[in-house]
Amino acid sequence: MAHINVPENVPGIRSLVMFRPDAGQHLYQLAQVLLRGESPLTPAERELIATYVSHRNGCVFCTNSHAAAARSLLQNDAPIVDALLADMETAPLSEKLKALLRIAGKVQVLGKEVQQDDIDAAKQLGATDRDLHDTVLIAATFSMFNRYVDGLASLTPQDPAAYEPMGKRMAEFGYVMPEQAARV
Amino acid sequence: MAHINVPENVPGIRSLVMFRPDAGQHLYQLAQVLLRGESPLTPAERELIATYVSHRNGCVFCTNSHAAAARSLLQNDAPIVDALLADMETAPLSEKLKALLRIAGKVQVLGKEVQQDDIDAAKQLGATDRDLHDTVLIAATFSMFNRYVDGLASLTPQDPAAYEPMGKRMAEFGYVMPEQAARV
Repeated sequence: MAHINVPENVPGIRSLVMFRPDAGQHLYQLAQVLLRGESPLTPAERELIATYVSHRNGCVFCTNSHAAAARSLLQNDAPIVDALLADMETAPLSEKLKALLRIAGKVQVLGKEVQQDDIDAAKQLGATDRDLHDTVLIAATFSMFNRYVDGLASLTPQDPAAYEPMGKRMAEFGYVMPEQAARV
Repeated sequence: MAHINVPENVPGIRSLVMFRPDAGQHLYQLAQVLLRGESPLTPAERELIATYVSHRNGCVFCTNSHAAAARSLLQNDAPIVDALLADMETAPLSEKLKALLRIAGKVQVLGKEVQQDDIDAAKQLGATDRDLHDTVLIAATFSMFNRYVDGLASLTPQDPAAYEPMGKRMAEFGYVMPEQAARV
């Protein structure tokens, strides 16, 4: 049971933004612009960064839901997601994306962990300022979402199958506040 | 120097949101609703939570700027800020606020650190669901801001005096995107 009185049977962050929609709307808008807005990184690559950070933070709800969104976006390449969750360094990802994921992993620990060497290594593999910016902000943003979801002990479905329709919805419609989602 | 090419001589998060305003606007709107919007916690109490989390994350820019905002809001009670930064447990704060700051400190580590006992202790001291929600989301949000600001090595003024006018502006005008701020 969640630490506060949120709508029952609504999982994860959806229950929390229904508790305080005036703050929640900005969280959803932020997720939408970061994960679906214009970026040199594909939506699938951005969902992989979100999944990786959430996994490192041990946030089961965010890991499973964004892994499902990434699988839905990757289609035939969906097995990449489980390879990433098993071991990022050996997963079948581009060297550039691995360099960005290493930076995301450092941001997950603390911002100051990112060193000039990490930035230089990513740039040598073709990362632009915008790739670096978006990677850091997505990693920072999921450091927030993970803490919000787990800090209030929001409902976390235990059955992996529960995340499949969630991931499909996130891949197809993006990040839409619950009451709007109901009208889709 | 920042890790990416942002406007020179603009400190902290302001330089980053000028690099990507479509994301930045949601960050500012989130800060405004959380720190100045309706809440059972006063704006000064919310700035103290932001300051405490930023201090624990070692984010010099966020600690100094939000400490300055809290001092400006607290007026004659401004010394509370330095007492909090020295030792939260002995600072002249209400027991209820201390219980909430203990929860914020756990969220700073990781969401899962918050235990039912922490929630019960705060409730016994009068904390409502809304106090708990806002505390957790503010602590989570600053876990994001701190990582964004330090992960991209944005400009951090070293002179404490540089933060005074910043704090006054944050206390008086709240969180306004840089280009709008210039028109005030």
